[in-house]
Amino acid sequence: MLTRLAKITGTANVLHGDDMQGYARDWMGKYTGQPLAVVRPADTNQVSDVMQLASETKTPVVPISGNTGLVGGTYTDGGILLSLERLNTIREIRPEARIAIVEAGVIIANLHDAVDEHGLIFPLLFGARGSAMIGGALSTNAGGSNVLRYGNTRALCLGLEVVLPSGEVMNLMSELHKDNAGYDLRDLFIGAEGTLGVITAAVLKLFPKPAAYATAMVAVPNLAGALTLLNRLQMASGGAVEAFEYMPGNYVEMYQASHPETRPPFDTPHDVNILIELGATAPRDVTPDENGEIPLTALLEQVLVDMMEQGLVLDAVVAQNDTQRAGMWTRREAAAEVVLSQTPRIDSDICVALDKVAPFLEQMDAHLQRLDKSARNICVAHLGDGNIHYSVLPSSESPELADRITETIEDVVQGLGGSFSAEHGVGLSKKPSMARRKDKAALGVMRQIKTALDPLGIMNPGKVLP
Amino acid sequence: MLTRLAKITGTANVLHGDDMQGYARDWMGKYTGQPLAVVRPADTNQVSDVMQLASETKTPVVPISGNTGLVGGTYTDGGILLSLERLNTIREIRPEARIAIVEAGVIIANLHDAVDEHGLIFPLLFGARGSAMIGGALSTNAGGSNVLRYGNTRALCLGLEVVLPSGEVMNLMSELHKDNAGYDLRDLFIGAEGTLGVITAAVLKLFPKPAAYATAMVAVPNLAGALTLLNRLQMASGGAVEAFEYMPGNYVEMYQASHPETRPPFDTPHDVNILIELGATAPRDVTPDENGEIPLTALLEQVLVDMMEQGLVLDAVVAQNDTQRAGMWTRREAAAEVVLSQTPRIDSDICVALDKVAPFLEQMDAHLQRLDKSARNICVAHLGDGNIHYSVLPSSESPELADRITETIEDVVQGLGGSFSAEHGVGLSKKPSMARRKDKAALGVMRQIKTALDPLGIMNPGKVLP
Repeated sequence: MLTRLAKITGTANVLHGDDMQGYARDWMGKYTGQPLAVVRPADTNQVSDVMQLASETKTPVVPISGNTGLVGGTYTDGGILLSLERLNTIREIRPEARIAIVEAGVIIANLHDAVDEHGLIFPLLFGARGSAMIGGALSTNAGGSNVLRYGNTRALCLGLEVVLPSGEVMNLMSELHKDNAGYDLRDLFIGAEGTLGVITAAVLKLFPKPAAYATAMVAVPNLAGALTLLNRLQMASGGAVEAFEYMPGNYVEMYQASHPETRPPFDTPHDVNILIELGATAPRDVTPDENGEIPLTALLEQVLVDMMEQGLVLDAVVAQNDTQRAGMWTRREAAAEVVLSQTPRIDSDICVALDKVAPFLEQMDAHLQRLDKSARNICVAHLGDGNIHYSVLPSSESPELADRITETIEDVVQGLGGSFSAEHGVGLSKKPSMARRKDKAALGVMRQIKTALDPLGIMNPGKVLP
Repeated sequence: MLTRLAKITGTANVLHGDDMQGYARDWMGKYTGQPLAVVRPADTNQVSDVMQLASETKTPVVPISGNTGLVGGTYTDGGILLSLERLNTIREIRPEARIAIVEAGVIIANLHDAVDEHGLIFPLLFGARGSAMIGGALSTNAGGSNVLRYGNTRALCLGLEVVLPSGEVMNLMSELHKDNAGYDLRDLFIGAEGTLGVITAAVLKLFPKPAAYATAMVAVPNLAGALTLLNRLQMASGGAVEAFEYMPGNYVEMYQASHPETRPPFDTPHDVNILIELGATAPRDVTPDENGEIPLTALLEQVLVDMMEQGLVLDAVVAQNDTQRAGMWTRREAAAEVVLSQTPRIDSDICVALDKVAPFLEQMDAHLQRLDKSARNICVAHLGDGNIHYSVLPSSESPELADRITETIEDVVQGLGGSFSAEHGVGLSKKPSMARRKDKAALGVMRQIKTALDPLGIMNPGKVLP
């Protein structure tokens, strides 16, 4: 097998033994498999050849790109780990059409840089953007901090190129905003976590870069107040809120402890801290007024002042320059690192309607009290999306306790009409939740599709589907 | 069979003989079938019972809602025509969450009226909205005049309820903006034209009603100039353009001829006429300035004045009140009626990138000259989406000529990277185009999915898939 793979990609691009370590172990260190080999094809044709060989030999294939996933989606024991890293060409940027045509191995931050030159943005934004690649973002339908305004990865994609399990290349590289020629296969492969085929390239949407941002850290009395703030800002700005991120007091405290060189957001600590960012897309929002103030910033300040007078905002700091803005974002984006440093730990990535975030947290407090009196929780949330990364730090390492807590989180989420999986995907770690929570008819349809498209069961086997 | 159907829905809701006429004939009068019966279930359970009976007896089932489709998608000879018209309840409108939960038989205009009371809009807008129903709009992923700002029907839907061919009910009624729990089945069933299952209910997104509109008819020298106008308006307004509709001179003339009581848009006729609408979503856009002018209208006027001075706009009329605005829209929305009154006629619903609209029209002019010297064309376009309803009026009724012209349209579209189907769907009438133009691998995947989900082939057989 290794010889035949080497014939396709060259010997240098078939790794085995210790060379596989950086691929076989996920970055959380939670899942470490023993792949048959890591193969690094150079282009779509080589991906196709690898898939043909895998089909012929019924060998499992697991696609991997930036290896920044959080759910064990690229774990394999005995399968070929198919790295897309060498498919890293930005094929085309067409500023007038506002599209970029890119390969799956393009690092998200590299695409950010490339389109910035044209005064454009690719608005997929999350902490791991310096390593995460387009292929993985598409395969997991990644979210992040700008979903509120621009949507998740699915909403940012017009077209796809996919290598099917048989090795056949499917060309869905539409550049159109309207295309009703048959079933929506694009959206089926996006978010399928490599279980139906290998995404090799995509047509992505670009957006005008906001001419200015208005960014602030705001403390409010409670989560209901945070929603009032969000709604008032959306109404006042006509939907210009790009990010609305929640950090509870204990997260801010932990961040401060591990980054003592930084200043805390407020003189007095608060329980409910919100990072707000508005983006100005029209000249009238950035042309300074008679006082030299940027209208969008003035609008943000006005809403904050009004709400402060009503006691609905406790404290607020508006970033005065790029350095202050960057500091606010660094605090938020350290979440993965700060939370992951805590063990033992039970993670989640849940989504509820915006007005159900407070009930979720209150109900969980009560349950935790009952399940593990001295457990603590730590969470950050894309509050504007209702997406909470709720982690529990239990008093002891116990798989049974961990299971009970996870099931309780699911119970509460289901009771509130939410989802156990918002933006990280299902992979390995949320398969039990799929089995317990997903609509049975939907699970049946998913299985029918999987069997139809991958009859040999070689595409990322054992993931997503329980 | 009729007796067993009547047991499910009651005798009054199983129609046969002449009572089926309004259902069996499409509204263009192009397709008339002979259904086994028209059955009108009252709710999802009855739909499920009908599908179970159909599965058991291997009887084809064709879903129908408003019967305003343009591609023969509800034609059946010998199948059960399953009308969703009695599933017409708006189950819930939740203004804070900005969602509506509706059944498939709700007429689009009725939903418009219901959400208007809450200061909200459901921004799916097309001429047939007084008859067309949500189920059909979802099944065809309908487009319309507001796609530019709000997206097509797919982009307006959060959750679905679907009755599968077996009769099993699949609950995907998510109210969430982020939900990555498994394959994206929602988007697969949206746009599947009833070939995979029956959509019975949906969770739909609502949006704040613009506090004001700025609407204008504008004449520009050519289509390139129209694109410049669109880009300048988008930049100046920060993306507030809701509609950007193209009407060529000959369409305006035909409309005028059939509606002599109306005033022409301009004193002098022009070739390239654009209906523009901007929507104001922020207070700063609608608060009158010191001259009493609405800022959004002032912004539109300023762009038009600047472009007129540069010779890029030839004439422009900004609507001064709701009556004038309505008149502009009535002219645009008469397109179906005006075009359909012409026979013989070859229709299309194509999409190309915005900068390819002019090349498409130019290339088609040259081809028509060759194929049928005295043929004329008439088209209107959702120009902001690159979606052109290009109809040819050939000199004679000849199926061979019609085929040649259709294939030529497809050739030109394919050469420009476009799609032969933008917003009307495939149904019966575009199956030959699917066979000729769709990526072969994608067709294969579509067939695999169809066979897996509908193994008996009873769901709207003979549609979409060639």
